[in-house]
Amino acid sequence: MNIITGNVVSPKGFKACGNAIGLKKSKKDMAIIVSDVPCNAAGCFTTNVVKAAPVQWDMKTVGNKIKGVVVNSGNANACTGKQGLKDTEDTAEKLASLTGVSAENILVCSTGVIGVNLPMDIILKGIDDTFALLGDSADKGDMAAEAIMTTDTYAKKAAVEIEVGGKTVTIGGMAKGSGMINPNMATMLCFITTDCAISKEMLNKALKSCVEDTFNMISVDGDMSTNDTVLCLANGMAGNAEIDGEKEDFEKFKEALFYITKKLAMSCADDGEGATKLIEAKVTGAKNKENARKMALSVVSSSLLKAAIFGEDANWGRVLCAMGYSGAEFDPMAVTIVFRSENGDIKLMDKGTPVVFDEDLAAKILSAHNIYIDMILEEGDGEAVAWGCDLTYDYVKINGDYRS
Amino acid sequence: MNIITGNVVSPKGFKACGNAIGLKKSKKDMAIIVSDVPCNAAGCFTTNVVKAAPVQWDMKTVGNKIKGVVVNSGNANACTGKQGLKDTEDTAEKLASLTGVSAENILVCSTGVIGVNLPMDIILKGIDDTFALLGDSADKGDMAAEAIMTTDTYAKKAAVEIEVGGKTVTIGGMAKGSGMINPNMATMLCFITTDCAISKEMLNKALKSCVEDTFNMISVDGDMSTNDTVLCLANGMAGNAEIDGEKEDFEKFKEALFYITKKLAMSCADDGEGATKLIEAKVTGAKNKENARKMALSVVSSSLLKAAIFGEDANWGRVLCAMGYSGAEFDPMAVTIVFRSENGDIKLMDKGTPVVFDEDLAAKILSAHNIYIDMILEEGDGEAVAWGCDLTYDYVKINGDYRS
Repeated sequence: MNIITGNVVSPKGFKACGNAIGLKKSKKDMAIIVSDVPCNAAGCFTTNVVKAAPVQWDMKTVGNKIKGVVVNSGNANACTGKQGLKDTEDTAEKLASLTGVSAENILVCSTGVIGVNLPMDIILKGIDDTFALLGDSADKGDMAAEAIMTTDTYAKKAAVEIEVGGKTVTIGGMAKGSGMINPNMATMLCFITTDCAISKEMLNKALKSCVEDTFNMISVDGDMSTNDTVLCLANGMAGNAEIDGEKEDFEKFKEALFYITKKLAMSCADDGEGATKLIEAKVTGAKNKENARKMALSVVSSSLLKAAIFGEDANWGRVLCAMGYSGAEFDPMAVTIVFRSENGDIKLMDKGTPVVFDEDLAAKILSAHNIYIDMILEEGDGEAVAWGCDLTYDYVKINGDYRS
Repeated sequence: MNIITGNVVSPKGFKACGNAIGLKKSKKDMAIIVSDVPCNAAGCFTTNVVKAAPVQWDMKTVGNKIKGVVVNSGNANACTGKQGLKDTEDTAEKLASLTGVSAENILVCSTGVIGVNLPMDIILKGIDDTFALLGDSADKGDMAAEAIMTTDTYAKKAAVEIEVGGKTVTIGGMAKGSGMINPNMATMLCFITTDCAISKEMLNKALKSCVEDTFNMISVDGDMSTNDTVLCLANGMAGNAEIDGEKEDFEKFKEALFYITKKLAMSCADDGEGATKLIEAKVTGAKNKENARKMALSVVSSSLLKAAIFGEDANWGRVLCAMGYSGAEFDPMAVTIVFRSENGDIKLMDKGTPVVFDEDLAAKILSAHNIYIDMILEEGDGEAVAWGCDLTYDYVKINGDYRS
C-alpha cells in the first residue's frame, strides 16, 4: 500500500470541484463529484430515526449505477417535511440533466443547520456554476473537500495506491466532521472514490466492515446526526479484473479502504468542535469484541473524562467510571489503566488497585496532543479502539449559537 | 400535603449535623444523621458496574434496621480496591460504637474524587467530632445539607407534612448533585428521613416508584457515577398505624415522598455544574411510557441542545435529532415541538413541518431561567418528563481540573 497525497480526484476518471454558491456568507458551500463512467456504489447511513431528506434519497438510490454526487454545506435539509424530499429530488434531477443520466443515478448530501428549507434557486444555479468548474487536477479535489466543511477547521483528505492484478488501483477520500459526532455515525459526511473494478456486493461488504471499526468508533459529543453518510463510488477504470469474491485482492482492497476510513475518521475526532487533543481509547482482554467496543466508546464519549483531558488532569477514575456505565460486563477488580503519549506512559490502576503515581510525569504525558488510554482486562480476547477529543470552552462557544 | 421549610431533622426523632473535618481545605465535609430509634430503610443505587465501596456496603446493609448514616464529601472511596471496602466497614463500625449498635446497622456514603483511599485517621476522628455536634434544631439539618456538597452551589433541602391516620407525619430530605448526573442515577446522594410508621416493603415500593420518575429522569452530563445513592429512613415515631399495604395511606405517603424526590431532583438538575438554566422536557402522545422516557431523557442529555439553550438559540432541530437517536420509535412527520417559558410560548415544528417563527419572541422566551420543551406526538398515551440544564463554559472549567 502506497500512501499518496491526494483526494477524490486521485483515482482515474473522477472530476470534482468546490464552489461558493451563496448558502453561506462567503465560504465554499457546494461540492460536486462526477465520474466519467457510471459507478458501483455503497453507502452507510445514520441510524437516527429522523433521517434528513437526502439520506432518505440516497438509501433508496445507492443501489443504482451512480454518475455523480452533489453536496451542499450550510443547510442540512433535515426536519424539512415533504418540501425537503422534493428539494432533494430536484437537486438530483438538476445534476442528472447536466450529466445525461436520470435523477436515480445521482446521490445528494446536505450538512448544516437543521429545520430550514433549502433555497432552491440558489442550489439550482449553484449546480450549474459548480458543474462548469469540474476538473481532475488536485486543486479541484481540494476545493471539493473545503466546500463540505461546516465547523471543521481543516479539510480532511486521504489517498492510497495499491496493486490489484498487475494494475494500479487508487482510492481517494474526503470527509467533514466535526460536531454531533457519535457512533452510527457522526454529522459526518465522507466521500470515497476509487477506480477499482469491484462488484457492488463486495464494495458494500468492504465499506461496511471498514466503517464499523472507524467512523462508528469516533465520538465528539454523543449526538448522532440526521445526515450522517459515507459513500463509496467505484468506476472500474483502473482496468483490473473485477473483484467479485473474498479472495486475496478483496483483502488488499479492504485494507487500503480501511486506511482511508481510519485516517478520515481520526481527522474528524481530532478536529472535533473546539478540540485541542485527540484521545485514542483502546480496550484489550475484554470478554468479546462487543464489550470492548462499548467500553472504548463510553470512555471517549464521557464529558467528564473529556473535560479532564482538556485540563490535562490524570483523573483516571473517570475512565473506570465510564467503563462501568457502558453496558459492558467486566470485573472492575481486574482492570489495569495506562495513560500514554509521545512523552511517556504511566500506570494509574493496576488490576483494580489504584497506583500512587508521579503527578509531574502524568502532567508531562497529558501535555501532548495525542493521548492514548489503554484499558487492559483479563476477561477474554475482545479488543477495540475508539477515538474522541477533549471537551473545551470552544465547544460550548461554537454550539451556543451555531445558527448565527 | 403541607409544604414546610425543613430538612432531615424535621421528622420526629432525627438528629443530624455537618462539620469540617479536614478532607477538604476548609469547607464542611462530613454529615451524620442518627435516629433515636432504629429505622426501616430503603435505598436506590447506581447501576454502574463499578460501584464505590460504600455503595457495595449499603446494598447489603439497607435491609437491616438502620440507626444512622455517615456521609463524607471530598473523596468518593470509589475505585479504591480492597482497602476501600475495609475503610467503609471501619467507618460504619465507628458510628456503630458511638450509637450502641453494630456496623450492620449503619449506612455509609462518600462523594468526591475517585481513586484515592480515604485518610482513615481524619475520618475516624471526624466521626467523633461530628457526633458530638448532633442536634435536632433546623440549623443542624442545614449544616448536614451543606456538608454533603461537592461542586454544588447551594444546599438542597425539602420537607412536607401530611396527615396519616389522624397523626402528623413529616418527611424531610437533602441531596447533592451536581455533575456526573444521569439516569440510574446521578453522582447524586439523597437522604430522606420520615417519622412515618411504614413497613420496609412499602417504604421500598414507594421509594423506587418515586425515584423512577424523578432522580432517574435528570441528566447533567450523561455520566453515571459509581456512588449514586438515595436512602430513606423511617423511624415510626409519628405514631400512626403502620402502613403495610397499598391502601389510601400508602398513596398519600407516596405522593408526599414524590414531592420531596421531585423537588430535590429538579434542584440537582438546576444546579448542574456550570448551569445557568433549568430545562424541562416533556413528551406526550408517545407509543408508551418507555418510549416517552427515552425521548425526554435523550433531549435533556444532548450536548448540542444544551449548548444551544445556553446560547438562547431556538435550535429546535436538535430536539428532533435527539428524539431520533433516543432509541424510541416514532413518526418524525407527526411531531409538534413547542418551546415555553414565563415569557410566552412558540411552536417551532407543527406535525413534522417546520414553522416560520418570530426570532425575537423565541429569544425572549429563551432568556428565562426555566425553559420548557414540549414534544407532542400522535402515537399513543405515553408521557414522561425529564430535567436537565444547559452546557456552559463553566462546566468545562469545573471539570477540567476537578482534583486540584
